[in-house]
Amino acid sequence: MSRTVVSSATREMVIGFDAPFCIIGERINPTGRKKLSAAMAEGDYSMVEADALAQVAAGAHMLDVNAGIPLADEPRILADCIQLVQGLVDVPLSIDSSIVEALEAGLAVYQGRPLVNSVTGEEERLESVLPLVKKHDAAVVAISNDETGISEDPDVRFEVAKKIVERAQDYGIKPQDVVVDPLVMPVGALGLAGVQAFRIIRRLREELGVNSTCGASNVSFGLPNRHAMNGTFLAMAIGAGMTSAIMNPLHGEELTSIMGADVLMGHDADCRRWLAKYREPAAEGDDRRARRDARRRRRA
Amino acid sequence: MSRTVVSSATREMVIGFDAPFCIIGERINPTGRKKLSAAMAEGDYSMVEADALAQVAAGAHMLDVNAGIPLADEPRILADCIQLVQGLVDVPLSIDSSIVEALEAGLAVYQGRPLVNSVTGEEERLESVLPLVKKHDAAVVAISNDETGISEDPDVRFEVAKKIVERAQDYGIKPQDVVVDPLVMPVGALGLAGVQAFRIIRRLREELGVNSTCGASNVSFGLPNRHAMNGTFLAMAIGAGMTSAIMNPLHGEELTSIMGADVLMGHDADCRRWLAKYREPAAEGDDRRARRDARRRRRA
Repeated sequence: MSRTVVSSATREMVIGFDAPFCIIGERINPTGRKKLSAAMAEGDYSMVEADALAQVAAGAHMLDVNAGIPLADEPRILADCIQLVQGLVDVPLSIDSSIVEALEAGLAVYQGRPLVNSVTGEEERLESVLPLVKKHDAAVVAISNDETGISEDPDVRFEVAKKIVERAQDYGIKPQDVVVDPLVMPVGALGLAGVQAFRIIRRLREELGVNSTCGASNVSFGLPNRHAMNGTFLAMAIGAGMTSAIMNPLHGEELTSIMGADVLMGHDADCRRWLAKYREPAAEGDDRRARRDARRRRRA
Repeated sequence: MSRTVVSSATREMVIGFDAPFCIIGERINPTGRKKLSAAMAEGDYSMVEADALAQVAAGAHMLDVNAGIPLADEPRILADCIQLVQGLVDVPLSIDSSIVEALEAGLAVYQGRPLVNSVTGEEERLESVLPLVKKHDAAVVAISNDETGISEDPDVRFEVAKKIVERAQDYGIKPQDVVVDPLVMPVGALGLAGVQAFRIIRRLREELGVNSTCGASNVSFGLPNRHAMNGTFLAMAIGAGMTSAIMNPLHGEELTSIMGADVLMGHDADCRRWLAKYREPAAEGDDRRARRDARRRRRA
């Protein structure tokens, strides 16, 4: 049973096969968000604050923090944001950057045990990120592409993931501290993207024994009714063994699917969280319904 | 690849691992529906007609027809309803009764190749239903309980299913013509009902190579927000290999989940059915979104 333990200064959180699904809020990311990008570049972190609070209120178990702004001082901004967010909310963070110095700056100020997002199968990236992960005793997201790009063949992506897990072990990082992102393709462009994803996720779990994650909204790229498609994908991926996702927690469809999947995976004891969220205050109609249900139960 | 072929007088339909999920409309069933029960007993089939049309319009691929009214002449009513429904809609039917004479009467008037609902692992039932299925060259739903009742142990339920499939073969009925209902328990009462169901469904597919079905709403019995829970369950069950369900096709949440799962299983070529259902007519907002998406695509 792979258990990835991450923490903030005060709170521990487990990503694992026997744990509820881990929602990693993706909103603190200036990519494609002009206003946020401009504000962050000017040192105005009010939107970052609002995003942090809103995502945790919505049910995020972790937050991803990315400060990838072209030409800006990314290491400093990322470190600033991490300190700010850790001062506001107590969920563990995922420190997200493609720049190793930024990861380093984030790790230097982080309180607790973060997720480092990310290492890939590229040699240069393996050699620069893994020592950092080891030095700070962090966990790491492993993205299953390498120098040759992202293979459309899911078995190749699995092999890349396997290589990263093995290389991490060479650096003294346990498989349980590697969370693999198998790279889910848009199903509108690649009809087998769903089945491929489910297959890799199951192999990651059964053959490598590692946790997995993904950018959950990529699967619905270009399609209408995206949130419903994302929710359906998440439920099926959880059934196949996926244990976390980097996603927008502000949408009801995805959240409901995840909460339902937690119940169905046996990860919501006595359906307590489901009931707390969806049980309506008692009303006449409910009483009628309850009585009718009780009658049916007796009959059955 | 197991393919259960059923038909009406004019239309063939395949339940199978490589086919879209088969929605079997459950509404034509007087159990628990007082008004329908009274009307059917009096020979007033107007509600049956309305239910048939509404379910097919909503997307049902087959209709289950049940005439189980206490003290009524079930064989005659069932035969009447089947003729009536076959005159109205061209989807294949599931002839549903616990009374063998009623199944017989339904089979006698049915045009095409129906599903017989159902045989169980009970000796008396095996011996009376299977010869009938063979005689009419029908397909059959096999419910995985026997004389000892419904086991809470999913491995026992699997063994019952296996026994029925073997017995069917003794009667000359191929495994591809047996659609197993593994009996999904309410997750509110039995916390592991979901994982158990997914496990049996996968075993049915991988070890017995048979199609499966279930009463999809049972899983959410007693819980709030049932349609969302049913939809999540259906998506996960389809991911595990379930190929049909006897269900109410009139609810959006379940239907959307199934349509999304079909896309993700690679059973909706080019997402055509998803697009036909959810693509909004072009509007200014969509244009903006399309342009933004195009920009992102270029960037990625």
